[in-house]
Amino acid sequence: MTMVTPVQYADASPRVRAVFDDIMTTRGVDDVNDLWKALAAHPPTLERTWAQVKDVMGPGGRLDPLVKELVYLAVSATNNCEYCLHSHAAAARAKGMDDETFGELMQVVALANLTNRLAIAYQVPVDERFRTAPPRSPA
Amino acid sequence: MTMVTPVQYADASPRVRAVFDDIMTTRGVDDVNDLWKALAAHPPTLERTWAQVKDVMGPGGRLDPLVKELVYLAVSATNNCEYCLHSHAAAARAKGMDDETFGELMQVVALANLTNRLAIAYQVPVDERFRTAPPRSPA
Amino acid sequence: MTMVTPVQYADASPRVRAVFDDIMTTRGVDDVNDLWKALAAHPPTLERTWAQVKDVMGPGGRLDPLVKELVYLAVSATNNCEYCLHSHAAAARAKGMDDETFGELMQVVALANLTNRLAIAYQVPVDERFRTAPPRSPA
Amino acid sequence: MTMVTPVQYADASPRVRAVFDDIMTTRGVDDVNDLWKALAAHPPTLERTWAQVKDVMGPGGRLDPLVKELVYLAVSATNNCEYCLHSHAAAARAKGMDDETFGELMQVVALANLTNRLAIAYQVPVDERFRTAPPRSPA
Amino acid sequence: MTMVTPVQYADASPRVRAVFDDIMTTRGVDDVNDLWKALAAHPPTLERTWAQVKDVMGPGGRLDPLVKELVYLAVSATNNCEYCLHSHAAAARAKGMDDETFGELMQVVALANLTNRLAIAYQVPVDERFRTAPPRSPA
Amino acid sequence: MTMVTPVQYADASPRVRAVFDDIMTTRGVDDVNDLWKALAAHPPTLERTWAQVKDVMGPGGRLDPLVKELVYLAVSATNNCEYCLHSHAAAARAKGMDDETFGELMQVVALANLTNRLAIAYQVPVDERFRTAPPRSPA
Repeated sequence: MTMVTPVQYADASPRVRAVFDDIMTTRGVDDVNDLWKALAAHPPTLERTWAQVKDVMGPGGRLDPLVKELVYLAVSATNNCEYCLHSHAAAARAKGMDDETFGELMQVVALANLTNRLAIAYQVPVDERFRTAPPRSPA
Repeated sequence: MTMVTPVQYADASPRVRAVFDDIMTTRGVDDVNDLWKALAAHPPTLERTWAQVKDVMGPGGRLDPLVKELVYLAVSATNNCEYCLHSHAAAARAKGMDDETFGELMQVVALANLTNRLAIAYQVPVDERFRTAPPRSPA
Repeated sequence: MTMVTPVQYADASPRVRAVFDDIMTTRGVDDVNDLWKALAAHPPTLERTWAQVKDVMGPGGRLDPLVKELVYLAVSATNNCEYCLHSHAAAARAKGMDDETFGELMQVVALANLTNRLAIAYQVPVDERFRTAPPRSPA
Repeated sequence: MTMVTPVQYADASPRVRAVFDDIMTTRGVDDVNDLWKALAAHPPTLERTWAQVKDVMGPGGRLDPLVKELVYLAVSATNNCEYCLHSHAAAARAKGMDDETFGELMQVVALANLTNRLAIAYQVPVDERFRTAPPRSPA
Repeated sequence: MTMVTPVQYADASPRVRAVFDDIMTTRGVDDVNDLWKALAAHPPTLERTWAQVKDVMGPGGRLDPLVKELVYLAVSATNNCEYCLHSHAAAARAKGMDDETFGELMQVVALANLTNRLAIAYQVPVDERFRTAPPRSPA
Repeated sequence: MTMVTPVQYADASPRVRAVFDDIMTTRGVDDVNDLWKALAAHPPTLERTWAQVKDVMGPGGRLDPLVKELVYLAVSATNNCEYCLHSHAAAARAKGMDDETFGELMQVVALANLTNRLAIAYQVPVDERFRTAPPRSPA
């Protein structure tokens, strides 16, 4: 059960409607996902979260949109977020992910979770060679 | 301090040397990272872990090697694995990651961690539309 | 499905009933939450857990009871505990939390999850100024 | 070792300096923490992160600034973020947290981590009474 | 809803059937758990995961099979994996775990989660005595 | 750097000394680990934590003390608690854990972390057979 009363478009304040409208226009859909309706119970959270998602997940930059969705899925699997797995799998599939790609992705995620625990459990200090990398120019 | 006594090449059994040799040949390096030396204290763990890493992270498949390293970094940041962040950042940089790409990647990782917690905190059920996706053919 | 057979009051041993009675008296309710009925399958866990909850979450001390519930919710959202989110949201609402407060709280929780990952991902060492804080007197 | 080359004020672009200046003015300090210098290697991350921190953690709203810092510490302890624990403990101490308050806070955090795992391990379904809460008006 | 179309035995390729057959033979059951049917959507993941589970969780070695299942449950509770808790609780019960043992196990798991957070929150450096342990001979 | 000023025996209040004395007597050692000295900055946390550790980790019950330490290590590796890994590895070694046992244990932990993520990522519902287990008698 959602922890707050979700806000439907018909009942939304102009401030909330402006965000809902921008989501629908940006994504070319005629309704927003239920997460946005829940976040709308606290408009500043709705505005801030959408502004970030729009900006970070949108086109432009060096990572292509499908790669961003795969990274999102990797984090969501590691954090066990059911909602995020379903909503971002839909987004990734719309951008070209098939079962084969999903399978490969999750093998990497699963392996990283395995080796992360081994490196942590064995408490191996970081190799000196990794600590003395050649300088990298700041952006 | 490493939890077990790391195994140096000079002291390694033939079984361990065979893995070390394969790592060095596969990667074109003349020594193995300290994590492998620690895992060598239990040879079955060394063999099994290397076999997986070689197979999953190697070329072939749909995800290119740099994308796999970025996914690895995303999981390692989420799990807080210092060793893995350093070793896989080196691998990713060798495959073309620069500060700009790292910055973009970590924005996605950070945002996913933020929205994961919101979706969890608000306990939003998965939208029906995500649950009734069109059938996908099995591999 | 609960992993053990929950213990109902009518079937409970005197040892378990004593804890159930104390919970009901302390909270002014006429039944205990289902978590307690499950923990009752192992009476020492029931006793020890209730003793801690009663002591730590009760009045007295510097943190007021609502703040304690908000902290509990922050941890439960970060750990993804559905049961705890629902039971402690009810407790927090009974102590005055409304949707506005919940929204503000979860913005802080979400932001902390975002910046935690950035600080971890960038592996920034702790600033010297934080390490050389003026001495604090022990309690 | 920081994963990117931190940006010092003297070497910063006008875009980065504008954020550094705003941090110093807002907080009344004469230098920014090292995390900001690292984030500055990717200016959009610096700008976005600071904008959120300034807005969410600042005054105004229902939660007082010390409570926000305590919630931040609770999340950072749960996520194991060493940097965040040190930087936000300094912020919380500046707002009035003493060892007694820290001790009480961490008792709640530790207890929540304990009961979260019990509720998860026992797989107790959420009580019906929590699912049928009276309606709450949307914001 | 499973993220991929599960593969039923009747529809499985020879490669997938070979794994399913080995699982059923090894475990003496006449069907495989649904997790294997989902992993079968990406045969390399199915093969690799089963090979590991068969090898690591099987008899032989110093840890007896019930202890391995208890360790598995401890990790699954800490990671909040509902599926794994149910499937490995069934495996542990088949090997002798009763409610009493489950209760004891989860007390240790819950306590470790509590003290882990305290040690992290207080940022206590590892005692020198733990860092200067007598040498241990490599395997 | 420890977040509070640790309490040394010479400076401790009678209340704190009573706990320190009990730890030393119970464990047959002549000083307490640094974690206890840090927790002593908030005496109720010290008392409560020690009472639990003494009771839960001590002899008696169905799980033998070494198994409890292995479970503790499994949780600590999963949670990434450096302090706990070192202190409980020392305790486990004192009870008979060698490098071989540690290697086996961490293979199980690593594998569980891998399969946990797969089960989560694929969102496989719990098999009906696990949900309809035969009734178990309450303790």
